[in-house]
Amino acid sequence: MNKEEIKKVSTAFKEYSSKMSAYNEALGLMFWDLRTGAPKKGASQRSEVIGMLSSEVFEMSTSSEMAAYLAKLTPVDGDLDEITCALLDECQKEYDRNKKIPAKEYRDYVVLQSKAEGIWEEAKEKGDFSMFQPYLEKLVATTKRFTDYWGYGENKYDTLLDLYEPGVTVGVLDEVFNELKGKIVPLVHKISHAEAPRTEFLFDHFPKEKQKDFSLKVLEQMGYDFSAGRLDETVHPFAIGLNPGDVRVTTKYDEKDWRTAVFGTIHEGGHALYEQNISEKLVGTPLCTGTSMGIHESQSLFYENFVGRNLSFWKKNYALLKDFSTGQFDEVGLEEFYRAINESKPSLIRIEADELTYALHIIIRYEIEKGLFNDEIEVKDLPRIWNEKYEEYLGIRPSNDGEGVLQDVHWAGGSFGYFPSYALGYMYAAQFREAMREDIPNFDQLLEEGNLVPVKEWLTERVHQWGKLKKPLEILEDVTGEGLNAKYLADYLTEKYAGVYSL
Amino acid sequence: MNKEEIKKVSTAFKEYSSKMSAYNEALGLMFWDLRTGAPKKGASQRSEVIGMLSSEVFEMSTSSEMAAYLAKLTPVDGDLDEITCALLDECQKEYDRNKKIPAKEYRDYVVLQSKAEGIWEEAKEKGDFSMFQPYLEKLVATTKRFTDYWGYGENKYDTLLDLYEPGVTVGVLDEVFNELKGKIVPLVHKISHAEAPRTEFLFDHFPKEKQKDFSLKVLEQMGYDFSAGRLDETVHPFAIGLNPGDVRVTTKYDEKDWRTAVFGTIHEGGHALYEQNISEKLVGTPLCTGTSMGIHESQSLFYENFVGRNLSFWKKNYALLKDFSTGQFDEVGLEEFYRAINESKPSLIRIEADELTYALHIIIRYEIEKGLFNDEIEVKDLPRIWNEKYEEYLGIRPSNDGEGVLQDVHWAGGSFGYFPSYALGYMYAAQFREAMREDIPNFDQLLEEGNLVPVKEWLTERVHQWGKLKKPLEILEDVTGEGLNAKYLADYLTEKYAGVYSL
Repeated sequence: MNKEEIKKVSTAFKEYSSKMSAYNEALGLMFWDLRTGAPKKGASQRSEVIGMLSSEVFEMSTSSEMAAYLAKLTPVDGDLDEITCALLDECQKEYDRNKKIPAKEYRDYVVLQSKAEGIWEEAKEKGDFSMFQPYLEKLVATTKRFTDYWGYGENKYDTLLDLYEPGVTVGVLDEVFNELKGKIVPLVHKISHAEAPRTEFLFDHFPKEKQKDFSLKVLEQMGYDFSAGRLDETVHPFAIGLNPGDVRVTTKYDEKDWRTAVFGTIHEGGHALYEQNISEKLVGTPLCTGTSMGIHESQSLFYENFVGRNLSFWKKNYALLKDFSTGQFDEVGLEEFYRAINESKPSLIRIEADELTYALHIIIRYEIEKGLFNDEIEVKDLPRIWNEKYEEYLGIRPSNDGEGVLQDVHWAGGSFGYFPSYALGYMYAAQFREAMREDIPNFDQLLEEGNLVPVKEWLTERVHQWGKLKKPLEILEDVTGEGLNAKYLADYLTEKYAGVYSL
Repeated sequence: MNKEEIKKVSTAFKEYSSKMSAYNEALGLMFWDLRTGAPKKGASQRSEVIGMLSSEVFEMSTSSEMAAYLAKLTPVDGDLDEITCALLDECQKEYDRNKKIPAKEYRDYVVLQSKAEGIWEEAKEKGDFSMFQPYLEKLVATTKRFTDYWGYGENKYDTLLDLYEPGVTVGVLDEVFNELKGKIVPLVHKISHAEAPRTEFLFDHFPKEKQKDFSLKVLEQMGYDFSAGRLDETVHPFAIGLNPGDVRVTTKYDEKDWRTAVFGTIHEGGHALYEQNISEKLVGTPLCTGTSMGIHESQSLFYENFVGRNLSFWKKNYALLKDFSTGQFDEVGLEEFYRAINESKPSLIRIEADELTYALHIIIRYEIEKGLFNDEIEVKDLPRIWNEKYEEYLGIRPSNDGEGVLQDVHWAGGSFGYFPSYALGYMYAAQFREAMREDIPNFDQLLEEGNLVPVKEWLTERVHQWGKLKKPLEILEDVTGEGLNAKYLADYLTEKYAGVYSL
């Protein structure tokens, strides 16, 4: 093609992909709406609508029109701008992934997923793995077949990891997870013999409306832009970026534990800052979102842990929290408060885990998934293996499968390879924190002043603005000058908990 | 085609039209969201998304796939069920209408509309018709050309009326509007010499939250299903049916005039009851909505006027309203309150008009539109003609075009033929009320008891459930045994205002 033809085709390609983005924005709004107040009786028809729009996007990703664009335009071609190249790369990957699965097998898989989620819910409630086992077996078998279609190099599981965190492999994870485990397990053991902080004051009644007022103040400090977002209530909190001008945070209020809403809002606020600050030039394209699950999680965990559970942050905010509370902190000093919100205690449920033990929950899931996809573990043995690992790493044992192997929805939804992103995000965050220390040596002082703007700006310049223009490991490398490294997280945890528990 | 082929094609056709419905549901949610709390900064990208989805629906309505369905399937064919026949009829009409406009002319028209709305807003604010005049001239000229493409019988304006109220013609409207005018104008004149009710207590401070609580109680009495809906705040109130399980009401609070929210909510609640009670068998099809603008308005006006401004309704509810108020009604008896909320006074602004004078506002617009499309009135003369008509029918004259000919957005949006629906709805409502009196002779007593369920059930059986399965005049005929008749509305108004003003 000559230059003019290339221009014409690439314009059409960009319009085509904008249409996919438009559908995704509509889908995002429907998702948000269903989870924040849509009337119950409309939900089943809404699911039909979501199904139809999703299929449309799926079909567009594998259509003959898409195939023609991908065949005609070459990312390496000097005539194409950076955005078009990244778009082509993204669409090519999606095309290959979706096109390689025979249509009938994909349809069967979608039906299986949806059935499995229903059964999982019931099985979890009854604590009965045997109900769920045949579905999980089919899900694993289907996913293995898909992995065969997609192809794999050294390790089948690498192909699954690549779905969520492009570039991260079993080789890399084995190394960093072993290092983390080696540092965290002894630390957990030490803490179990140290004196536990007083925490009972955390659980006094804290009115929902006041929790909300305080959460709003914190979001404001973080630099969350309320003219490009809003805060709503939901059951399973999330943040969602419809476009950078509309990034919504949701949270959950527990009047017997204000930490759920406050730390939850800070966490989701971290995700939201990412989506609000993606470069304007990516708006309306499929590149206008976080680059990976792991990098996204690095932003939420950065704010939740390095900001929200930091002593400096509370120097000013503790007084504010007291103002909104009904007096439960009157007799509690700042240091005591700080130790309480940083209590570490092995627990069975991942989403309730503290900052220190969280990674162990992830590592357990990683080891199991890797075993499953390398034919070293069979589905039927999962409850036993799960319980043994909890005993080994955390020193506690689930009393039933509901609080054990059945606790997370991920596997029922066919999401294998997703869990590691959580721990990756945590390691990335620690690496970013280290790099930030050089540029912002007065980090703690800024937190004391409640001036988080420089922190946000630093992250925007290095992470947020790029959207999917850069791959996750490219961002890590550009920001820190090195690859994935567990040391920074391990050092941070060691130092922090030494302080909290006077080890 | 043999039976089997017909079945196959009609199934594909229904799936195709469900997809159009799905897109419309997504569009509806985006519309609602933009008007109830979507972050401002996301609005421009949201408009792009809305534009893309709307074009998609438009293209689907005129695609070659649609053309093939319409060619292959015949509504009169005995092999097709009632829903498929109605669907075909609906899609054929849409196809003809959209296909007859050359694509380029339609695109130019959309651009013109959007520009005209912007200019209109500014012109209205400045009260300067001359700014808007060239745009309105173009809009009228384009619409005339479209009317030529669409074709027309006796009167060009009939084709425009048919867009909003199929079956209603200039011949019909001239007759009913003349009758209405003949009854209302002398009544308005008489009232202007009668003693005006005391109303100052209506305008005392009424806290927004309390208005909301009261409005919710009224919606509940009406039988609005809150598990299939919700009430939100907005600037220009509306009700929207996404599907019968999700029909949302919006309202506006004026702390200096509680009537805005309360009568507004009752009005929108009437629209909402219609959409909530459409038959399940139409869910997910384009037939699952009100059959016309006029029939929709008959439901909202029925509740707003025949229920909400009825003395019986307030026998119980006045005490409730007092409970929610801050004491402004303490010295006001029920009768005095009733007269106050039914005060009639000629006013310049349609949307603020009372029950009696409202129809005159509509008749003025009807006469002007008819004149425009029959080349009897030129756009440049509109301000003069408008003011003369207000003087003649209502005895008042706008002091500037902002409160005169520029007050409504309809013409700027190219909606000609729409205004009559408001008055039609009012007449339909009065005819329904007459028919209902036979079946529910204790109507007033039910209102006194706050038991509106039988009223809703009566309307559901005769109006709501049908969705677009029946045409507007078919519903009118089936419910009342006759065609459009202004007598019932005229009689109602005469009797009511004789009471309110002791004429």
